Amino acid sequence: MEKKIVLLPGDGIGKEIMESAKKVLAAIESEYHHRFILQECAIGGDALDRYGVPLPDDTLHACNEADAVLLGSVGGPKWDNQPPKFRPEKGLLGIRKGLGLFANLRPVKTFPPLLHASPLKEEIVKDSDMMIVRELTGGLYFGEPSERRNNGEDVVDTLAYSRHEIERIVEKGFESAQIRNKHLTSVDKANVLESSRVWREIVNEKAVDYPDVEVEHLLVDAAAMKLITNPSGFDVVVTENLFGDILSDEASVLTGSLGMLPSASVRTDGLGMYEPVHGSAPDIAGKGIANPIGMILSTALMLEYSLGMQEEAKAIESAVMDCLEQGYHTADLKIKDGKQMSTDEITEAI
Amino acid sequence: MEKKIVLLPGDGIGKEIMESAKKVLAAIESEYHHRFILQECAIGGDALDRYGVPLPDDTLHACNEADAVLLGSVGGPKWDNQPPKFRPEKGLLGIRKGLGLFANLRPVKTFPPLLHASPLKEEIVKDSDMMIVRELTGGLYFGEPSERRNNGEDVVDTLAYSRHEIERIVEKGFESAQIRNKHLTSVDKANVLESSRVWREIVNEKAVDYPDVEVEHLLVDAAAMKLITNPSGFDVVVTENLFGDILSDEASVLTGSLGMLPSASVRTDGLGMYEPVHGSAPDIAGKGIANPIGMILSTALMLEYSLGMQEEAKAIESAVMDCLEQGYHTADLKIKDGKQMSTDEITEAI
Ligand SMILES: CC(C)[C@H](C(=O)O)[C@@H](O)C(=O)O
Ligand SMILES: CC(C)[C@H](C(=O)O)[C@@H](O)C(=O)O
Repeated sequence: MEKKIVLLPGDGIGKEIMESAKKVLAAIESEYHHRFILQECAIGGDALDRYGVPLPDDTLHACNEADAVLLGSVGGPKWDNQPPKFRPEKGLLGIRKGLGLFANLRPVKTFPPLLHASPLKEEIVKDSDMMIVRELTGGLYFGEPSERRNNGEDVVDTLAYSRHEIERIVEKGFESAQIRNKHLTSVDKANVLESSRVWREIVNEKAVDYPDVEVEHLLVDAAAMKLITNPSGFDVVVTENLFGDILSDEASVLTGSLGMLPSASVRTDGLGMYEPVHGSAPDIAGKGIANPIGMILSTALMLEYSLGMQEEAKAIESAVMDCLEQGYHTADLKIKDGKQMSTDEITEAI
Repeated sequence: MEKKIVLLPGDGIGKEIMESAKKVLAAIESEYHHRFILQECAIGGDALDRYGVPLPDDTLHACNEADAVLLGSVGGPKWDNQPPKFRPEKGLLGIRKGLGLFANLRPVKTFPPLLHASPLKEEIVKDSDMMIVRELTGGLYFGEPSERRNNGEDVVDTLAYSRHEIERIVEKGFESAQIRNKHLTSVDKANVLESSRVWREIVNEKAVDYPDVEVEHLLVDAAAMKLITNPSGFDVVVTENLFGDILSDEASVLTGSLGMLPSASVRTDGLGMYEPVHGSAPDIAGKGIANPIGMILSTALMLEYSLGMQEEAKAIESAVMDCLEQGYHTADLKIKDGKQMSTDEITEAI
């Protein structure tokens, strides 16, 4: 197969780990006789420095023409004092909205060789394997008005959703549950928010179409507790944008392997953007010690979800597991009697 | 001293644990020669059943005349299908707003005899001792419009704050830090929300007035992570209503002693409402096995914050610690070689 992939290295360690993704893609090309046409574009602080905007039109255009997008990471202290419109994060929000990537899929799974690094007790976290499905282009992140009023005396942000926006993400939640363990936890704040009451109604309506999926409603505060007390009690979690931001980041530290976690942001036609969950880690950028596994597993997710290459994705995932089992790791992880490697070395090993 | 206290037992185990609070107050009365004039009023599901509204005017009036308010807990499955206006939670939101209790103080501290019950590894959680200061009468909980539009095709909620509302809670945060370990973490989502950018500006402005307090800004998603990976890295956390709801509940399960945690909701003149953090636990209501310690420590907090009785508060806290150290506990806790007690028994022991 021939596929067009846009690469957005971004900031900080994004550049280094994108090199790892390229090597993995090259290995898949030769092993499985595919052809990947790679195009590198700018986003975030890198785009600000080079073009004065966090999301150049060319980048958005190239992504729209591609079969999939790989993103490194975005942001860093260098741009922290920019006005809101000229901050790296605006590039991220802009590309999500611009490409209509309404569903953010965040798998969280324990890696047995890394369990000891979890802040949770092993018996609590050990069987955790969940997928958080976060709405990504609506809610408080994009609602209008979002402004100061009365000479700065008052300020409002708006949490806005249409039925259509809620329906499509809820469907994504149910579909994800169907191909996993058929349990869906819908998270809202229906005892306070009208938008959550609509959300809950839609979940109950849709449930009829997925009779094989068991549905549970959980308030966001209770969900924040259950993630810690009983993380293995979740299969698929579906929730709105801001709740999803908080809960998926909370979930990402449970297993002790944040540097390993991939994520996907997709729309209905299959186009998706794939990126590691960790940030741009400016403190270690350029040192060649960053953990590329989150990026490499994001590449696997891309092959699986956007490019229809299940077998190839599995091959990458097993290669990663093999390396961990052999004790290979980067500086952010510790494996007992293991071998610490640089970004390049572990990429080669994988 | 003579003080007027309104008691709001509420629903579920609320009634039983309020009896424990009364016994503790009686002990303080005779030991320290005070007089507490107690008035019991209805709230929540109990008020719905008896008066058809979750917050009768008489209750609000009595609270406004009192020196302090003790609340058991509110809510239960019996009222879960009521329309929003007739749900027990409306009573809670109504009394917060009606009394102007804008600051919710949630201390989270490890109890050494209960550390083993924490879902976190002991070395991670052991020195945790934080105070979450949550804004309680603004933000998404009360902003207008909060409504469906276009025949139910769209829905909005509004996150609204005035400078004044932000200033007074931020001041409360700084003041709390001053009497603790002089470190304040302000939590917002300033990379996305305009309200958070105003929040951050106000924190930076106010910081000048509290030069002895070190200030750190943290995004809400990063805060949700740090609570798990480094809970002892917090002293005082100040944040808006919804973030505070999520983070304080997340924090409440870290130490393994949710049933022990008190909370205070206060305004500037000293009037406050005090309640345990745990819910109404309808599954064990009426069985006489509920843990009254959260309620008893809430009573201590009331003596300290609203009634100016520091010594009396300390006496209650030491009594609780003594009992735990002797291994006395209720059914929700396990202490090795301890003695399990009923609500009444442990109250007597304390
Ligand atoms: C950078 C920020 C705007 C973003 C978000 O909140 O969506 C990030 O936290 C994420 O989760 O991808
Ligand atoms: C019952 C509910 C409205 C309330 C809230 O969200 O404020 C509760 O969760 C709390 O934290 O006291």
